[in-house]
This record gives sequence, structure tokens and C-alpha cells, in this order.
Amino acid sequence: MIEKQTSHTQSSGSINDLSLHKASVVLTGDRPTGKLHLGHYVGSLVSRLELQKEHAQIILIADTQALTDNANNPAKVSANISEVLLDYLAVGINPGTNTIFLQSHVPELFEIAAYLSNLVTLARLERNPTVKEEIKQKGFERRIPVGFLTYPISQAADIVAFRTTHVPVGDDQLPMLELCNEIVDTFNRTYNTDVLKRCVPILSECSRLPGLDGKAKMSKSLGNAIYLADTNEEIARKVSRMYTDPKHLRVEDPGHLEGNVVFDYLDHFDKDQVGLRELKENYTRGGVPDSLVKRRLANSLIDLIEPIRRRREELQRDPAYLEQVLREGTERARTVATDTLREIRDAIGINRF
Amino acid sequence: MIEKQTSHTQSSGSINDLSLHKASVVLTGDRPTGKLHLGHYVGSLVSRLELQKEHAQIILIADTQALTDNANNPAKVSANISEVLLDYLAVGINPGTNTIFLQSHVPELFEIAAYLSNLVTLARLERNPTVKEEIKQKGFERRIPVGFLTYPISQAADIVAFRTTHVPVGDDQLPMLELCNEIVDTFNRTYNTDVLKRCVPILSECSRLPGLDGKAKMSKSLGNAIYLADTNEEIARKVSRMYTDPKHLRVEDPGHLEGNVVFDYLDHFDKDQVGLRELKENYTRGGVPDSLVKRRLANSLIDLIEPIRRRREELQRDPAYLEQVLREGTERARTVATDTLREIRDAIGINRF
Repeated sequence: MIEKQTSHTQSSGSINDLSLHKASVVLTGDRPTGKLHLGHYVGSLVSRLELQKEHAQIILIADTQALTDNANNPAKVSANISEVLLDYLAVGINPGTNTIFLQSHVPELFEIAAYLSNLVTLARLERNPTVKEEIKQKGFERRIPVGFLTYPISQAADIVAFRTTHVPVGDDQLPMLELCNEIVDTFNRTYNTDVLKRCVPILSECSRLPGLDGKAKMSKSLGNAIYLADTNEEIARKVSRMYTDPKHLRVEDPGHLEGNVVFDYLDHFDKDQVGLRELKENYTRGGVPDSLVKRRLANSLIDLIEPIRRRREELQRDPAYLEQVLREGTERARTVATDTLREIRDAIGINRF
Repeated sequence: MIEKQTSHTQSSGSINDLSLHKASVVLTGDRPTGKLHLGHYVGSLVSRLELQKEHAQIILIADTQALTDNANNPAKVSANISEVLLDYLAVGINPGTNTIFLQSHVPELFEIAAYLSNLVTLARLERNPTVKEEIKQKGFERRIPVGFLTYPISQAADIVAFRTTHVPVGDDQLPMLELCNEIVDTFNRTYNTDVLKRCVPILSECSRLPGLDGKAKMSKSLGNAIYLADTNEEIARKVSRMYTDPKHLRVEDPGHLEGNVVFDYLDHFDKDQVGLRELKENYTRGGVPDSLVKRRLANSLIDLIEPIRRRREELQRDPAYLEQVLREGTERARTVATDTLREIRDAIGINRF
């Protein structure tokens, strides 16, 4: 069963997933390959903030997974562990109620993955459309690193390790969850147990925030992102370079909204949606300069990001606190993963002490 | 560099490997898929007994690896952990100086494997002749379980985890060590470190003890094995059914030694090699009944196995001691593997606490 969740604007990240209940365990997280940006904010952070009102979440900083296709660039992963943690805390993820942890420091996850990997064939892995697409994109063919090919199994291990019931995903990740549930069924059938639990995806209704250049996706590698760590000046500068309506050459010309990224962003981030509707009417009629629209967006984004950035800077001055958060979260995560590993060994019959 | 070791008879398992020195770390072990038999005794246990006079060995009971192609038959693995441990102790492996441990209880090994697997391509794994052969033998093709395909990486992780310098192997396993050393080089080059160590194979001069039926290999699945746990009656019965010289139909006929497994065994196990030479002369001349030769072999084997079996039975009556041995060894192994994992994370740059 797939439930939908809404996270259209910063204030309406309500979770409509009816299958969520008190005992639900939500697993989510990020690969630390860059600071988090507005795309992450809209796509996942808002829902996490909403979810944390009712549900404890396990939030994974997936450094080991990030290395599966960054083995030759470890500094990229290494440097961004703290950046992602800072972003989490700065937006208001509560490290007391949620469990924020570092994947590489929970070795039990990888032993769990080993048992799962005995139940998956190479053919099944290669059939996964996401992996297929990535193999093509990266031009790997059979030169694909084994760690990268097998990361869906490692993801399944992360999911089952925490007895996860719900995983927020984009629809491109549904095949991963399908594989995970398949493995769960095979494991339980093979070892005549019910120790592993199937999980349900929480699908976001809002797809993705487009990049500043109008490309489908905001991403670090495309250089089209506004970060939660950006200063007001950086935000204003980035917005001023955004694409608008290419046909809107003179102020008095009628402007178009379709494909006009600045208005897409205003839909997401402008708190005064009544005023925005008025602006849109004026813009399509003609007479509204792009600079005015952009200034309005810059102000909205600064309203959103400035307090996050300030909190980020504050936190950055307290590395001991950051380490404590990560250490405590990781210890909690490790306790659960160790328990699950023991249950798995028990089910297989090899648990000894 | 490949050194040779001799282990022709029970008393001459001398290690001629000149590269071994005080600081050498020898890693060895078995998949717990059956009780150990005379093939194991000749092929590895004798050298371990010899090695332990000078060198501490890490001895791995590879239950997780055994599951890579026994995922559907966990009881086979589960039941044989204790059997293998009993065999080790009964032949005289010293659990105080050596580290006997259970692979499944050292999760750090699997995280180490995860980092190594980012440095190996699928093509490289599939090129491994041992894996190729096994894929063919088991008729896997692309239905090969991922855990089985990747077990050479897991083996490499076991080797590097203990900073192993020497691994006793049969020559069929040389490609595995080659892969391991390749990974070590790639890791050290990629992360600009020397934290992982290359290892040297210790090749046994004595290839393999043939099966009771004269087949190349003594193995449980072929049903042609004498176990270290066999009673005197079982030994006598098994020897009485052994192949001798098919042309030796009447006692007075000349007998042949080539392909005569009973004499192969006597070469290995008869303590009176002078008397044996005489027997061979008489046998080839004619007049010696096979039953006499077999009785001689049965007696030699009983001389060897009976004290082992008695010690085995004694140990079996003390499960608390067995658990203590395995637990203490595993704790020691885990301490070292945890240290290495930390060094690996440090080299990559993701170690936090």
C-alpha cells in the first residue's frame, strides 16, 4: 500500500499517510555528498519536521553508502558529514526525539547486509531499474564497483535493522523498497520466522523543486542550488540570475508563468499567497519588471533561510555538541541494530553469545 | 613470493616457509559445513599444530561465509560450528595461544568488506577462476546469490582485518589471495595510506588426501571420508571397504601400488615407514592379502584417531568450556578487527568517535 503525503509549501508539510500510527518507525536520511539545499528542504526536511511532531524518526547520514560511488573522492563524503548534521539541526530536527546517526559507525548493518545478500541473485540486482539507470548514466557497464551494484541490499539492511515500517521516498526509489520487501519475504520464508518487517513507502506528492536554471532537479553537481547555509547576499545574487520568461523582454510586455522558475519558487516559498496571486495577474498583464518579482522571491527565501543559517553558524561554533548529538544518536542506533542482528542470527540458528 | 611447506606425514608437518618470522600473523580456518576428516587433518590441521609451536594463528570458523552457498540449509552450518571447534581442540590446537573465533560474531569484518567492495569491479570478480569454476559447478549462471559472488571480497576483509601476513592455502585458492593483494594495493593507493598489508600464501607441498574411493578429494558430500570423530569400528569398517588394486584378485598375485589408495594412506599415516617399505616389496611380489594391508592401515588410523576422538568426547561433555573458548577467541578477534576498521575509517577520513 502506498500512501501520499503533501509538502507543498514550507507551512503545509502535513503528512496524510493514514497507515502511520504511534508505533510506526520512519527511516530517512541523506548521503553526505554536499550541504543540503532548498531541494532537500522542500523534498524531505519539511516532512521530517512535520513527522517529528508525532513520530520518532531514524535519520541516517549514509557516509558508507555515499562512498559506493565516491570511493576515489572520500574528502567529499568526509567533509559533508558535519555539514548535513548542521543542516538537520539548523532546520529544527530534534536530536532528542529523533535518532540521527552515522552509518559507518554501525558495523552491524553490514553484517545484516551479508545475510540478505545470500537471498538475492545477481540477475535480480541487475534488473533493478534505478541501478540499471545509474549504471548507464555513469557508464559503468561491468566495470561497476561491487559496492555500488550491491547498495540496494545495504539499503534493505538499513531498513530492516531498525524494524522500519515507513520510508519516505521519491517514486524513483520505489523499486528499492520493492526489492527490500522481497528480501524480507524471502528471509522470513527461508528461516521460518517473522523477525523481519515489510515497510511501506511514504510518497511525497510534491515531486521536486526545479533548479535555479529551470532544470528538473536542484543539485550540487549542476551548480543550480541555493543552500541552507547561503548568506543573504548569495541568495540575492543567485535569485537575480534565475531564469524567468525569455519572451518578457520589456517591462510593459505581458509575462508568462509557465516554465517561469521564479514563480514556481514563489508558489513554494511566498507566505503571502494572496499577494502572490495579485502579482501573477499583473505580471501576465504586463508592466511588472522581473527584478521586482525576483526581489520578492529573494526576500521570501531570505526570510526562510536567514534564521536557519544563523542557527547553523551558532551550532558550528560548538563542535563538542555536534559530536555529542552524532555519538548519542549512533549509540542508540547501534543498540537497535545489534538487537536485530541477534534476532537474525537466532533465526538462522548461528547465534552463540 | 610463494613459500612451500611440507606436511607429508603426521609427524613431519614442518613449515619451511622462510618468510615466516616472529611477527607473522597467520590466518586460517574452515567453513563449518561438516565435521573435520582425515583430509583436513593432513591438509591443514597438522601444519597448524606445527605452526603453533612458533606462531600465534587466527583460526576462523567461517559460518557466515558457509551460508553464502548454504542459505537454504542453515542447520548444516549451525550444527557444525561446535563440531569444528571440537575437532580443533581435540587435535591439540591451543586456544590460549591461538585465536579461534566465530566469523558471524565479528560484524566489523563485514563493514571492512563494504569498503573493499567499492574498489572491486563486477568484471574483476567474475574473472576469478575459482568463482568461475564454482558458478559452473553449481549451475548458478546469473542466478548466483550475490553473497556467494562476493565472498572473495569478504575473505579479503577477513585477511586484512587481522593484519594477516601469511595464509596457508591450496593452489586452487591462489587467485583469491591475488585478488586480496590487489585490493590491498588499490586501497592503499586510493587513500594514500599503508594501513592494509599484503599477505603471502603458504602453499602446502602435499596436495590432498584422496578419498576412500580413490577420488581426488576426501569430502563429506562424496561420502568417502574418515572423520576425526569416527569410532574404531567405523574406521575399521570404512578401511575394509577401501579400493586397493583391482588386478589383485588372488593373494598370490603381484599387487600394484600405483592408484592403490590403501598404500597412499599408509604413506601418510604409518609410523613404521621401514616396515612399510618391506610390506610394499612383499605386496608387489605377491602373497600379501589386501585384508592384511587394510588391517595395518586401520590400526595406524585408530592409533591416530582414537585419542583425538576420546578427547573430543571429553570436551563434548563440557559445553561451558567450549563456549568460553569460542567467546574469548571471538572477543580477541573483535578487538583487532575493530582496531583495523577504525584505521580504515581514519584512512578514508570518516572516523568520528
